[in-house]
Amino acid sequence: MSNHSNANTSPKSPKSDLIADWEHLFKVFLRPEDNASRVTLVKYMEQILFGLHDFLKKHVGITEAKSLKELSERFTDTVINENPEKKLAEVITCVIDEIAPQAVNVASPYFVGHMTSAIPFFMVHLKTIVSALNQNVVKLETSKVVSIIEKQVIAKIHRMIYENSEAFYRTHVQNTETTLGAFVEGGTSANLTAFWVARNARFAPKEGFEGVESDGMAAAYKAYNVDRAVILVSRLGHYSLRKAAGLLGLGNKSIIPIGTDEKNKLDLNALRQKIHDIENGPEKTCILAIVGIAGATETGTIDPLEEIAEVCAEHNIHFHVDAAWGGPTLFSNSYRHLLKGIKQADSVTIDGHKQFYMPMSCGMIYFKNPVIMDVIAYYANYVNRRGSVDLGIKSLSGSREANSLILDSALKIMGTKGYELLINHGIETAAAFAEEISRRENFQLITAPELNILTYRLCPSELQQKLSFDDAQIRQRVNKQLNSINRDLQRLQRESGWSFVSRTSLKFGQDHSNCIVVLRAVIMNPMTTISILKDILDEQEEIYRNYLAGKF
Amino acid sequence: MSNHSNANTSPKSPKSDLIADWEHLFKVFLRPEDNASRVTLVKYMEQILFGLHDFLKKHVGITEAKSLKELSERFTDTVINENPEKKLAEVITCVIDEIAPQAVNVASPYFVGHMTSAIPFFMVHLKTIVSALNQNVVKLETSKVVSIIEKQVIAKIHRMIYENSEAFYRTHVQNTETTLGAFVEGGTSANLTAFWVARNARFAPKEGFEGVESDGMAAAYKAYNVDRAVILVSRLGHYSLRKAAGLLGLGNKSIIPIGTDEKNKLDLNALRQKIHDIENGPEKTCILAIVGIAGATETGTIDPLEEIAEVCAEHNIHFHVDAAWGGPTLFSNSYRHLLKGIKQADSVTIDGHKQFYMPMSCGMIYFKNPVIMDVIAYYANYVNRRGSVDLGIKSLSGSREANSLILDSALKIMGTKGYELLINHGIETAAAFAEEISRRENFQLITAPELNILTYRLCPSELQQKLSFDDAQIRQRVNKQLNSINRDLQRLQRESGWSFVSRTSLKFGQDHSNCIVVLRAVIMNPMTTISILKDILDEQEEIYRNYLAGKF
Repeated sequence: MSNHSNANTSPKSPKSDLIADWEHLFKVFLRPEDNASRVTLVKYMEQILFGLHDFLKKHVGITEAKSLKELSERFTDTVINENPEKKLAEVITCVIDEIAPQAVNVASPYFVGHMTSAIPFFMVHLKTIVSALNQNVVKLETSKVVSIIEKQVIAKIHRMIYENSEAFYRTHVQNTETTLGAFVEGGTSANLTAFWVARNARFAPKEGFEGVESDGMAAAYKAYNVDRAVILVSRLGHYSLRKAAGLLGLGNKSIIPIGTDEKNKLDLNALRQKIHDIENGPEKTCILAIVGIAGATETGTIDPLEEIAEVCAEHNIHFHVDAAWGGPTLFSNSYRHLLKGIKQADSVTIDGHKQFYMPMSCGMIYFKNPVIMDVIAYYANYVNRRGSVDLGIKSLSGSREANSLILDSALKIMGTKGYELLINHGIETAAAFAEEISRRENFQLITAPELNILTYRLCPSELQQKLSFDDAQIRQRVNKQLNSINRDLQRLQRESGWSFVSRTSLKFGQDHSNCIVVLRAVIMNPMTTISILKDILDEQEEIYRNYLAGKF
Repeated sequence: MSNHSNANTSPKSPKSDLIADWEHLFKVFLRPEDNASRVTLVKYMEQILFGLHDFLKKHVGITEAKSLKELSERFTDTVINENPEKKLAEVITCVIDEIAPQAVNVASPYFVGHMTSAIPFFMVHLKTIVSALNQNVVKLETSKVVSIIEKQVIAKIHRMIYENSEAFYRTHVQNTETTLGAFVEGGTSANLTAFWVARNARFAPKEGFEGVESDGMAAAYKAYNVDRAVILVSRLGHYSLRKAAGLLGLGNKSIIPIGTDEKNKLDLNALRQKIHDIENGPEKTCILAIVGIAGATETGTIDPLEEIAEVCAEHNIHFHVDAAWGGPTLFSNSYRHLLKGIKQADSVTIDGHKQFYMPMSCGMIYFKNPVIMDVIAYYANYVNRRGSVDLGIKSLSGSREANSLILDSALKIMGTKGYELLINHGIETAAAFAEEISRRENFQLITAPELNILTYRLCPSELQQKLSFDDAQIRQRVNKQLNSINRDLQRLQRESGWSFVSRTSLKFGQDHSNCIVVLRAVIMNPMTTISILKDILDEQEEIYRNYLAGKF
């Protein structure tokens, strides 16, 4: 059978004009076949790779100091042009010259404020492969081998988490009846999927009730004679947990925050007490799940997973681990032990775009029980047929890109050792940073790093003394002053555009009534060295001096 | 301030070894600075672009004829290697030589079965830009100008849908208090967001009730004295609507299918009757939303949007339009009128990875009311602070990639005219295909195309005669036989790997009791010409002849 497309007959250069007519449009689709055009298109890729890179390297700073207001005013036109405005070359130039300088240089080693960082160079190539192939993993007919690779890579990560037997993975890796996990958009969707499954498994069909997925929450409570379903998690749980509960019709109030100990880990006594109170309370309350955090967003701390697992087993409660951040610590021989107990989890969230260093956006959810995802299965005649291997059957997402191909390739390129180097670097650099902070008299380490996240604040020595006063009112006044200083400091440093730490506020004191503003550092960029971190502290001290001198 | 990263001091070629130590890892991150290495990395991109392209062009077929079982057996290893296995170059070669041949050539003009197709060449460049910048649009601190561009492009598409005044868009385009829509993962997330918003707006906080998002579904029903909330949609609604209702705790049974007319459009009388029945039924039922489809997945048909809007206005019901497929028809001066009434919708779903020809995965949701998304707002101290412009505040997603940058650039490269050419080509080629099907005596057109989707079946002339018999039993038997023929035909054609149409089953007859298997063609690839479509019919006739001759 021959290819009837007629574009092969007129291979002209594509660079001459804007796409205003069929012929040009056609060439954009077909891709130019003559050599000159290919050279041009490869040149564009070179510009994207190195034009951007060189710019970002030269401008080590975080972003140009244009105000948001000033920027906003430049992007107000809302009419789509009838005719093309720009050629691809111009779009690329515009990105390099106009967008990149006003975007955020998340790849800078001085950007240590959020969970977004430099990604390995090869990741960009891998993403390009995924979009050039443009497979849709919702079903086999639009992905074929890519669906099979996805099942394999899911089994690989499952094995890293759960360490089941070779026989177990032989049985399930390509089993079309079972599911070890799924790719989703990000940690939010992963947590949502975990609770969705837990909810449906708990409120399963029974006599006179077709299950919560079919009949809804109100009917589920009636059928199971329950007033309320709740989920317990440390007060440091990510806000996506509340969003998930809100979405699922449980209500976000059903996320019950549990206190933490002095190391910011879930307080097991408080957990046991809460379970006792619930079980003996006036309402018929069902505990749907308990969440253990493996890498809290604000403090990077890990809950006592093993002990939580025991509590869950004892009370027959779904145990979910939110390891969106900390999951890849499993790559490290030195630090894997920190996640001890994770293999008892009924479900585990891990983000690909965090410590797997994949491009935005990629999340994953894993389940211990290979058939539990059956409770969220959906079928349709035109897609996801019963009995098919279509991955869209048990998935929050419909159509989606093949991020599994990126992860699979990255694992081959890096090996566990490559990832281990990154993980160890982050943890060890954060420890060194904590020491440096403690050493400086103008800073106060607030939460020591367990992984690679820590919080601290600028706290001039004269104020530090006052904090040790007995008078609670004085201490409160000083803390208020410090909050204001640190809030301004973070903003001024961000605006000056050289480096970036984030800020949040943490609650302290026995009743968590004291809210203090802290600076938060996330050390995930392998180019972030202790010497860079010292620069950042130096700059903060300098900003504070100018601040005192009234320069701001 | 100087860049302290130490990699600049030793620029060596990166291609020599696998990443097993810190130095190599470092270079992967930093990107090689010497010329030879740059040349190598650009060469990789060339391979990705043209190696893949040349392969796919040469192998015009859909996929190599390896059985699923055979393929599965090759991907069963589940241990992640400790040491790196492959260099980037090898990964790329493997994709071209081993993965691509076993993936699905969705870019083939002979692939007319699903809503996934060839994408313009420049889209791959744009996706590469997005991943090279790796901005995270969840918040301004990790995206800055990119968040601003996103607000602008959302306003552009909103304007295309709703055609409000220039003053309206001036007010809202960069307004940090209002939201015209959001980027999400795909159509499923978009529909979910629409219902989420409708649910929360309907069950808003009131005396003694903090709202459904906070208190949950069961409490909402109590507070509003409701037994049940339902959503009405034609029986051709996408399965994601059921999934969304299941997720939200409404229960997927609450999606009530309404009958269609002989043109596969929502039957307005049936709709009015159903509303009447609900309002006068024994249960206190609240109608949360009515959905109008603009481009049904199976038949491509458009519901009478204007009339549904009237019904919704009359009863004060949220009007959602699922235009995941058909939305971009608005680009076409010739066919825009088909979506008349869409501007009355309270919410509209559109997919970027469908007829915007963007790479997987990109969905969008738009709202008429610029403050209605407030009902799904979430805040956190470390991200999405109150009063900030962080786009993650009102969003199903947390971290996500900047697909808005792709759409913004594509609109500039294509103009509305460029997209119009694509839309018109699809609709007109589908019309020509329908004519060709009707002309051939061995085929039967089942649903004529309104847009660029049609269904038909192979129906040999001798069986067609029997279908006109009076005897219902005979007709039923013949239909059963035809179902079996068409099921096999679709599979055999897919397996032979030259071309691909999909199949689904549609219900006919007054009570929709007759289920017939149909072949489904989606004409979105601009390289798909009528002559290619004739080839596909020829091949189907040939397969049928061989089938009769017992060759399969």
